[in-house]
Order: sequence, then structure tokens, then C-alpha cells
Amino acid sequence: MRVAVLAHGKFPDRAKTAVGLLRHSDYEIEAVLDRENAGKQVSEFLPDVQDAPIVAEMADAPEVDALIIGIAPIGGGFDESWRSDVRNALDRGCDLVSGLHYFLADDEEFADLAAENDCDIWDVRKPHDDLGVAQGISGEVDAEVVLTVGTDCSVGKMTATVELLEAAEERGADVGFIPTGQTGIMIEGWGNPVDRVVSDFTAGSVEEMVVERGDDYDYLFVEGQGSIVHPAYSAVTCGILHGSMADKLVLCHEAGREVVHGYEDFDLPPVPEYVDLYEDLARPVHETEVVAGALNTKNVADDAAAREAIAEFGEAIDAPATDPVRFDGEEDGESGYDDVLEAIL
Amino acid sequence: MRVAVLAHGKFPDRAKTAVGLLRHSDYEIEAVLDRENAGKQVSEFLPDVQDAPIVAEMADAPEVDALIIGIAPIGGGFDESWRSDVRNALDRGCDLVSGLHYFLADDEEFADLAAENDCDIWDVRKPHDDLGVAQGISGEVDAEVVLTVGTDCSVGKMTATVELLEAAEERGADVGFIPTGQTGIMIEGWGNPVDRVVSDFTAGSVEEMVVERGDDYDYLFVEGQGSIVHPAYSAVTCGILHGSMADKLVLCHEAGREVVHGYEDFDLPPVPEYVDLYEDLARPVHETEVVAGALNTKNVADDAAAREAIAEFGEAIDAPATDPVRFDGEEDGESGYDDVLEAIL
Repeated sequence: MRVAVLAHGKFPDRAKTAVGLLRHSDYEIEAVLDRENAGKQVSEFLPDVQDAPIVAEMADAPEVDALIIGIAPIGGGFDESWRSDVRNALDRGCDLVSGLHYFLADDEEFADLAAENDCDIWDVRKPHDDLGVAQGISGEVDAEVVLTVGTDCSVGKMTATVELLEAAEERGADVGFIPTGQTGIMIEGWGNPVDRVVSDFTAGSVEEMVVERGDDYDYLFVEGQGSIVHPAYSAVTCGILHGSMADKLVLCHEAGREVVHGYEDFDLPPVPEYVDLYEDLARPVHETEVVAGALNTKNVADDAAAREAIAEFGEAIDAPATDPVRFDGEEDGESGYDDVLEAIL
Repeated sequence: MRVAVLAHGKFPDRAKTAVGLLRHSDYEIEAVLDRENAGKQVSEFLPDVQDAPIVAEMADAPEVDALIIGIAPIGGGFDESWRSDVRNALDRGCDLVSGLHYFLADDEEFADLAAENDCDIWDVRKPHDDLGVAQGISGEVDAEVVLTVGTDCSVGKMTATVELLEAAEERGADVGFIPTGQTGIMIEGWGNPVDRVVSDFTAGSVEEMVVERGDDYDYLFVEGQGSIVHPAYSAVTCGILHGSMADKLVLCHEAGREVVHGYEDFDLPPVPEYVDLYEDLARPVHETEVVAGALNTKNVADDAAAREAIAEFGEAIDAPATDPVRFDGEEDGESGYDDVLEAIL
């Protein structure tokens, strides 16, 4: 599917979804919409993802099948300055994909235009109507379930999950992806937005996905969210932990992170405590173990320092660790990548 | 406020909300609607709550200000056999209060009748629109926050909370109630239905209540939900634990309960493990301690056996315990009631 991705004013640093799609999705991204960088190429900012021209507006984009909203302003609202881009996309018969809290399908103008031009609107953050409470049956699927868990939000759980999945597939493993957030859902083209479901259905919305795919793969890699001791988001984390009934956990952390992102009054507990917390909390529902770690070293100066930080992190969690973004899956043993995959698979 | 409470076919054993209102609310309950027990009195079933006549339908009820739906069928749907009762109530100018998942305000006939007769419809399970993520500020309120937590769902957390609150008030303590579920919200006439909010807002919906009332009382008693190791509902429990930033916890358990209610494949862990799990999970957000226990002994034959079970439970949690329903708050020290209140206040 050929797509254009809207990322006005935020590309690339504050356009997590757009960058995630460029890095991991199978979409053919024909253009990124960013009026501030129009005329440049994606590769000028991000050398290691698929390249695309950056254009000022949808009218300048080549023919595509869909327009994806690739950024999320604080609050998740719709920026009215994007209306002409969306209108142009619908006029040209493109489908819409959006992760905004503001549902494009509920916008009267867009709904009418979509009907006229036979376009689909997929608001990925809108949970479907049939969700319910978990039945406690995720443990019955054939696949081994691997869940990424974090010491905080925004440490790179989604990226680690997808990077490890790709590396596992390169080694011949049969792995399915269970996305739980908007970027993961867009990459996969499927999934429940676990942070938007009714709180009673949190575990159930994960279980539904695990059960749907769990007999089709040898492994399921479940994208985690938040942290079990996050002042605001721990409920979602806990629901994913119990709803997935994970067999193995991969603990994700960012090197140097000491306080909760956006909640700086709250210190992160020492890393080894997370291992105990996640394992102890999971056990009564499903026995599990932290088998590996993924350390985000994007703020670490060089590879040598990153390797040192990873070694320290691995010791703290008593398991192999790597940075699956900085180091290549094909690399030698020094980066820990092979040990991590061996522990997971 | 004078009310009638609908409980057709389920009174009293499967009418948790109706019984909760009879036992704990300040409403003057003028009639219970139950066509199977029409002509009897509430006191024939429940000697220790406010008495009311049981009538076959709303048309037989005396003049009241509101009709409350006091039962919740599995799935939370509206039973069409109740339509004539609701219609009759609206025709008579009564307000409606309902905890069903099916929102009465969205029912076209009821909405029209309510508008015609100037009646309010309060669907207590409908979260208000301004909820958001927690800011991590519950710990800043003046009141000491006491949260009931459980070893399972349906062990009597709501009842224990309200009983302990009433006993504390009798001793002169200044206590506010923070309800989190439909019955508690109806009793209090206020509150967020924490299990129905967007999962990302679970902690935030509790924090909002704690902050709203936290400077008006010396103590806030927060009604807990579920259990931190429940296969389906742990997300809600975790969100309440972190969102309330409780200073003290009261662990609630039912004597003899060994497996998860409705999820019999899952064993409950030993009681002392719950103490560690709740305290360890809470600590990184807000230091807390299990200071007392509430044991539901409704299935224990006599008071002597109940006292024995309570003593055993108290030893397991290393804190004073009682059954706040079986034993009266005014009783002597033997029931543990005074020790429990002393630990909480």
C-alpha cells in the first residue's frame, strides 16, 4: 500500500508515529507532509529508514492509497491547519488512517467526503465494540508469549519489540506481533488500542489479540506500555502483563533515566527491583521471568560507552542485554544481541 | 430524598446494589420493586437494614423523588420487562438513577419522557467527559488516604469501606468517602465509575476524586476494586492503588476463599504474599502499609469460628483484623474492631 504521512512541524524528533512507520512498516511511503521541511528528503534526517520526499501539503504528494496522520499533538486533538490536506486526500479517493483522540470518522465534513469518494476512515484509537473482560485463557495458546515491559514510559518498548521481532525472523523464527499502541497498530494494520479501552477490559483487549493469533505462530511478541510503577499509566501496564499471560519478559530501560518521564518528582526504583516487581506480580496469574533486557542508549555518546552501559544493565537484571536499535542484529557477540535472542527464543 | 429501588427477581441475594443502598445510603427507600416477593417486607429477608415494603411494580409504589435500578444483570443490559416501571416513574416526574452499562439517557423513549416531565437521568456508569491522566498529586492532599484492597473481587471491599467509615465517624473521626464503583457512587451520590473509564485515565479518575475532597476531611476512605493479581480486573486495582497514593491499606479477604471468583483455575496466593505485593507495588509511587484487615465471614457458621478465622487472618497479615459486618463497631475488644480502627485512624 502506498501512503503519505502527515507530520507538519514535528518531523522527525516529535513525530514518533511517522518515524516508526518509516522504520518498521511495509507501507510504501511516497511522501511525508511537513511544511517546514518541504523540498528535503527523509534521508537527510534519518539515514537508516526508507527514504521519501518531504512535501508542503497533500496536493504536492504523488498518487497514494492512503493518508496517515503521523503525529499526535498534546491532547490528541485535530489541528485545523491540516483540514485542507485531509480534504485533498479524500477528494483524491485516499483512505485515512489516524491515531488521534479526535476521531476523523466523526467529523461531518470528512465523513461526507469519505462517503462521496468511497474512502475508508480508520481511527486506530477507537476500540471496537465487542471488547469484554478477560477470561484468563491467553496461557492456552500454542505460541510462547514474549512481552516487553519497561522501567518507564517512552523508553522504547515498541521499537525494541519490533527490532527484536525482525531480528528473530531473520534467524528463521516464526513470530507474530501483538501491538497495543497506535504506532504498533498502524505498522501491523491490526490491533486493539489498549490504552483507550474501558479499564475493565484492559486485560481482555490483550487476551483477545493473543488468542486470535496465538495458534498461528511459534512466538508472539507483545508490545508493552508504560511501567508497573508509573503514577498515571500503571493500570495499562498491569492489564497487559496479566492479559497476555507472558511466558517471558524483556525489560526495557533508557540509559541514564532516573526519574519518571514527565513526573520528575518520582524516582525510578533501582533496576533489579523492577525484575522482582514484574515477576512477583505476574506469578499468581502466570509464571514468568525477565529473560533479557533492551537498553535504549540513544543519549549515550559512543558505542563503547553504550556497550559499558549495556553490560551494567545486564548485570542489574541478571540476564543478557543489548540495544536493538544501536546495534545490528547481524553483529558479533560483543553487543549482546545474539545472547538476547537466544534467551528469548 | 425518597426513592424506590428496582430489584425484580433478584432480591436480596443477587441484588448487591439494592442491599447496599438499604444498608448504607441516606435515601428514604419507600419501596423495593420485586414482582416475585410483592407483599412482603424487606425486614423479612434483612433484619438489620432500613425496612421497606416490597411491591410488584412502580405503579404500586408510594410517591418518591427517584427510581433507582438496584440490580445489574450479567452484561449490564436493560431488561425490557422493566420498561413499564421506568415509564411509570418518568410519567410521575421521578428522576432515574441507573448503574447499567446500557445508558437510560440514551434510550429514546426515556429521554423524551424525561424531557417532557422535567426528570433527570443519572447513568452512574457513564464517566464524565473531562477525565484525564493522573498528575501524581494525590499525595499532596491534607487528608490521610486509606484504601481497601482485596485478595479477590467480591470479597466485600465496598461494604468493609462503608462499615469502617461509619464506625470511624461514630468515634468522632472526620472521614470522607471516595467511591469507585456503582453501588458506592449511588450511596454517596457522587463519584467516578473507575472500572468504566478509559484505561489510561484509571489512576486519573481516582486522583480527581481524592484531590476534590482531600482538603475537606482528616481521612479519606477509598473503596478498592478487584485484586492486584486478578486475571481480568488487576488493571483497575493497580490504577486505584497508584492513583489514590494511599497512606494506609486495609486488606479485605473472604474466609475460605481459595481460588479466584469465577476464574477457578487460578489459585489465590497465600495471604501474606498480598501484603508484600501491594506494599512493594505502591512504594515507588507512594510509601504505604497494610495496617489492618477486614475478613468477610458470612460463610462461617458462628461467631466463635469467625473469631478464630479472624485471628488467623490477622496473624497472616501481621496486623489487627475484624469482620466489620458480623461484629458491631460498638463491641468489645474481642472482635478486633477497636484495634482495626486504631490502626486506621
